This record gives sequence, structure tokens and C-alpha cells, in this order.
Amino acid sequence: MKAGGSVMAGATMTPAPAVGTNGARPWDGFSHDMAEVERILREESCSGVSLAEEVCRYVHEAGGKRLRPALVILSCRALGSDSPEPWYAGAAVEMIHAATLLHDDVVDHAQSRRGRVTVSARWGDGPAVIAGNLLFSRAFGMLARRERVEELRVLSNCMMTMCRGEIMQNVHRGNLEMTEATYTNVIRAKTADFLAACCRIGAMLAGADSRTMERMAAYGMNLGLAFQVTDDLLDVCGDEREIGKPVGGDLREGKMTLPLILGLQSATPAEREQVRAIARQPAITPEEFERVRGVLLRYHAPERTRRVAEAYTQASLDQLDPLPESPARAALAALAESLSTRSK
Amino acid sequence: MKAGGSVMAGATMTPAPAVGTNGARPWDGFSHDMAEVERILREESCSGVSLAEEVCRYVHEAGGKRLRPALVILSCRALGSDSPEPWYAGAAVEMIHAATLLHDDVVDHAQSRRGRVTVSARWGDGPAVIAGNLLFSRAFGMLARRERVEELRVLSNCMMTMCRGEIMQNVHRGNLEMTEATYTNVIRAKTADFLAACCRIGAMLAGADSRTMERMAAYGMNLGLAFQVTDDLLDVCGDEREIGKPVGGDLREGKMTLPLILGLQSATPAEREQVRAIARQPAITPEEFERVRGVLLRYHAPERTRRVAEAYTQASLDQLDPLPESPARAALAALAESLSTRSK
Repeated sequence: MKAGGSVMAGATMTPAPAVGTNGARPWDGFSHDMAEVERILREESCSGVSLAEEVCRYVHEAGGKRLRPALVILSCRALGSDSPEPWYAGAAVEMIHAATLLHDDVVDHAQSRRGRVTVSARWGDGPAVIAGNLLFSRAFGMLARRERVEELRVLSNCMMTMCRGEIMQNVHRGNLEMTEATYTNVIRAKTADFLAACCRIGAMLAGADSRTMERMAAYGMNLGLAFQVTDDLLDVCGDEREIGKPVGGDLREGKMTLPLILGLQSATPAEREQVRAIARQPAITPEEFERVRGVLLRYHAPERTRRVAEAYTQASLDQLDPLPESPARAALAALAESLSTRSK
Repeated sequence: MKAGGSVMAGATMTPAPAVGTNGARPWDGFSHDMAEVERILREESCSGVSLAEEVCRYVHEAGGKRLRPALVILSCRALGSDSPEPWYAGAAVEMIHAATLLHDDVVDHAQSRRGRVTVSARWGDGPAVIAGNLLFSRAFGMLARRERVEELRVLSNCMMTMCRGEIMQNVHRGNLEMTEATYTNVIRAKTADFLAACCRIGAMLAGADSRTMERMAAYGMNLGLAFQVTDDLLDVCGDEREIGKPVGGDLREGKMTLPLILGLQSATPAEREQVRAIARQPAITPEEFERVRGVLLRYHAPERTRRVAEAYTQASLDQLDPLPESPARAALAALAESLSTRSK
């Protein structure tokens, strides 16, 4: 990974660090851009109502990876633009992401997120729902103020798609007959489409032609699919100490994952019935989870899942081929590579 | 009320009917415009996901007064425009209104609304929160698609203001020391600002100059204040059979109302303590409510509240003075007059 190529004034020049280095992120080389995103997130937390400010500050301070703003910025920078617009669009996508997490926690009655008490658990469902809506309207309002109507259109479409994905997932909860095609539709809508939108917006802000825009969106889409499939895999085969939560959570919540779908495809009717009987229970013991995992391992479901993730990663890397070398392009590549080798 | 004046091709010519006639509404003369809003709401309910469509259809079929789209349309028509744009903006404001109701019902654990089971009670909190978000993003997306960036800005600001109002109301729940000024800030943010935004958007779509735009917004703001103050009054002095719910609901929920604020201002320390002791209880008996009402009546609080509502109504009517006579202007006037004489 090197820092050469066509780079632009606005972005910091430091090359993206190697992945895996003690909490380092592929976009660490873009610290100036990322700091601007943080500044906007902080400024936009001001609302004149102290409780609303407190909640929004709490949400933004929780941090998280800032993956979505990074995708907006890197996609824009990789296409040679030094515009300040991706700072605002980056802050907007992060606000929308934070809002969906706030609402998810209300719906799931979650008590903690990222190691902290959730807003709904601390202030109640009302403030959590309202703070989410405040963030949604602020994100759209900020883009409208900057006259970014096309980007706004992309983002509202993407938000609708996420809602549909969420509903699809609810409908199929506990449905052990779910096909791989339906599964892919759900994760595309729920996760990957948002990452695609971030990259598309970055490209739009760089003034890219429509072919390049589609290419960047395809990078984000495949990245998102790889990310979600790897997530599924970790829920079956991850190291509990590394992922910070017990494995088997998806099975317990009735969420269909790719290893489970692939395993059930190959299983005998008797094995399928055994898995079904376990999955139907309100609580699943560690022993029962091991029995399910045994069936999946018998048919190499984790291995097959890993190959699917690798194919998505490769498809996302392929999209970067025509781009000129630059720190931003290198960071996008490192990001894709880091996802399929991640262990948490 | 007559049908003369400067009227435009797109709007139906029938004059607005007299107020109070068996369910008639001041905007009944604009049935073509209102039908277009319904068409767009129906079309926009299609999402390709059956549960999402079902929920959104359920929401739109519940009906409601369609006050907000009517304000957009009447404000636009009263300024002489026959543009189809207010249909879309009207549908957008109704979607945002429906979304806030969906979320309110989740937060309040409400079982019924407009005589029907709520979405959250029927399908669960998850689908209700998600359907609300679907409506938000669809409303913003529709305006973005029509390149209505200024109207979008107004609407996102208004949504932020509503969120702030909601939070302020939560913060002051059960605060018997609330001043009239704080009360007015809350109802302005929670209710009146949205009606002002609807009228402002109608004027923008008619291409009005900024003075006319401010005037229409002031009409909507005062209308909203009159509406909310009258609502407060009905909660103390309404006829339970007409308003369809027991009086005293606001007091039971810890919501401060204008009659209560005005009554407490004049009450003796002993009376204040008596009201405070009753309000602090988790459940309030009809006898206790009568005792509170007794204090309010002693200081003519309902009468003084009615005068406040009438002043707002008059202020809203005053804004219409410079407009040329037209069915739309007549409907706006009838609407303002109907609010302060309403009994439900």
C-alpha cells in the first residue's frame, strides 16, 4: 500500500496503515477529513433543547467505526476530488445510521450497545424514538441546505430499502425454509444497499460519470454483502472473547444466517428436523447450539460461507481496478480485504 | 362565503360549505385536489414488501381529517396557482404526520387511535417504528424527486422543531410550575409550527413573495395555537360524548394545559397545594378531577383560555385580509372560525 497516484489538496497524505495494527483503520490516513465529519456531527448536535442535545451527544460520542462516512470520503477522494461536500454527506449518513440504531434498540428492548447503556434503557423509549427522528430530519435538512438534492434522493431511497429489508427480516424470522436467494435479498436491503449508497454519494460529489458511479456503488454493495456474510460466520465460528458476545445469538433470535441455510440445504430430513426442533425453542442451551453446529460442520457450511464472503470481497476489489493509484484507493482496497479476514 | 374572486383552473369551483354541516369540512370544495392527494398516498403505499404495504395502507385508510394537505392546497390556491405540486407536497406532509402518529403510539403504548387498533398493537412496535421511518423517507424522497429542495428544507426544519417540542413536553411532564410562556413554546413547536410549515409550503409552491409567505405561515401558526388551546379547553370543559374520550385526560397524563396554568396562577397557596397533591397521584378519581375543575372555574380559567383561543383565531383571520376573495380564501377563513367554535 503506497501513497502515490493522483491525490488532491483537501485530503491528508498519510497512507492508510496496514490492517489489523492495534485498532488501526484503513481510513486512518484521512484524519483531516474524518475530523471534519466529527466537527459537523458535534455542531449538529446542538438543538437548543438540553435533553435532545444530551441524547445526541451521547449517541455521537459512543463512536463506532464511522465506516459509512469513511466510504463517502474515500470514494470521493479516490476519484480525485478535494471538495468539502463529503464531510457533510459523511455526517449525514452517520446520523442516519445512528438513528436506525436508536430505533433498533427500542424495538429490540436492547439494554446495551457498544459497551454502553442504550438511550432507550437510559432515557426511555420516547426520547430514543424522538432522538432518532431528530437525526433523520437533521440529516435530510443538512443535505437540503447544501442543495444536494440528488444525494438526498439516493439517501431517502436507501432508507426506504433498509426499512423494507428490516420488515422482510421480521417476516422471515424463524423461517428455516428461507432460501439463499431470499437471504441475499434481505442482507442486500438491510446492510449492503446503505454502503453502496455511501460510495455512490462519494462518487456523485466527485462529479463522476454514471459508469464510475455504478462501479463505486457496486464496490460498496459487494463490500456490504461480504461484511454481512462474515458476520454470520462469526456467529457460528467466532471466538467469543474476540467478538465480545456469545456465539449462536442469531439462532437464538430466529435470524436466518448463511451457514444455517447452506447446512440445512445438505442435511438429511432427520437432521433438519433436529435443527428445527432446537430452533423452535424459546431458549437454546450451549449443548443444543453445539448440536446445530455439528450439523453445519458436517456439511462444511462454514467453509462454504467463507467462500461466498471471499467471492463478494473479490467482486468489490475488482471494481477498484480502473481507478488510478492513490491513498484513497489503497484504503478502499485495504478495507475490503480487512473485512473477509476479520475475526471480530 | 361566496365563490367569486380570482380562482384558478386546477381547483374545483364549488364554494366551501358552511361549517358544522354533518361532517362537512371547509375544504370540501376542493375535492379534486384532495382526491389527487389520496391517489398519491395510495400509490406511494406500494413498496413491494407485502407487510409494509399492508401497514401503510392501514395507516392511510384510517383517514383522519387531512388537515395538513388541505392547508398546503388552500394556501397555494388562495394565491392563485393551479399547479399540481401541492398534491405531492400535501401527500408528503400527510405522510410525515402519519409517521409521527405511528411513533407516538409506540412510545405511549397506545391501543387504539381514531377508533381502530393501532399499528403497534396489531403488528408490534417493530413494524410500527419501521413503517414510520418508511413514511418519513418516502415523504422526503418524493420532494427530492420533484426537486423541491426549499420545501424539503422547510419540512425537515419543521420535523426537527416537532421533535424538540416533544422532548420539551416530556421534560415538563407533571411540572405544575410551568409558565404560560413555556407552554406556548411547547405547543408552538409541537403543533403550530407544522401547520405554519404547510401554509408556507403552499405559498412557496404558488411562487409567493417572501412577505406573503410569512403571512401565510403566520396564518398557519396562529391557527395551530388556536387549535391546541381549544383542545386544552375541551379536556376540561368538553362534552365527553362529543369528544369521544373522558375529560381530564391531560391532567391524568401529567400534561400541562392552559386552563390549568391560568387557574394555578390565580389560586391561593392552599388551592395550589390541593391541585398539586391530586396531580401527583398515579390515578385520579372523577371526584378529584371535579375538585381541580372547581379551582379552575373559581378563577374563570376556562373563560380566559377561550379568550386566548379567540385571539389566536382572530390573528390567523387577520392574515387573510390582503388576499383576494376566492373559494380557497373562504375555506381558510371558515377553517379558522370552525376551530374556535368546535366542540370536539
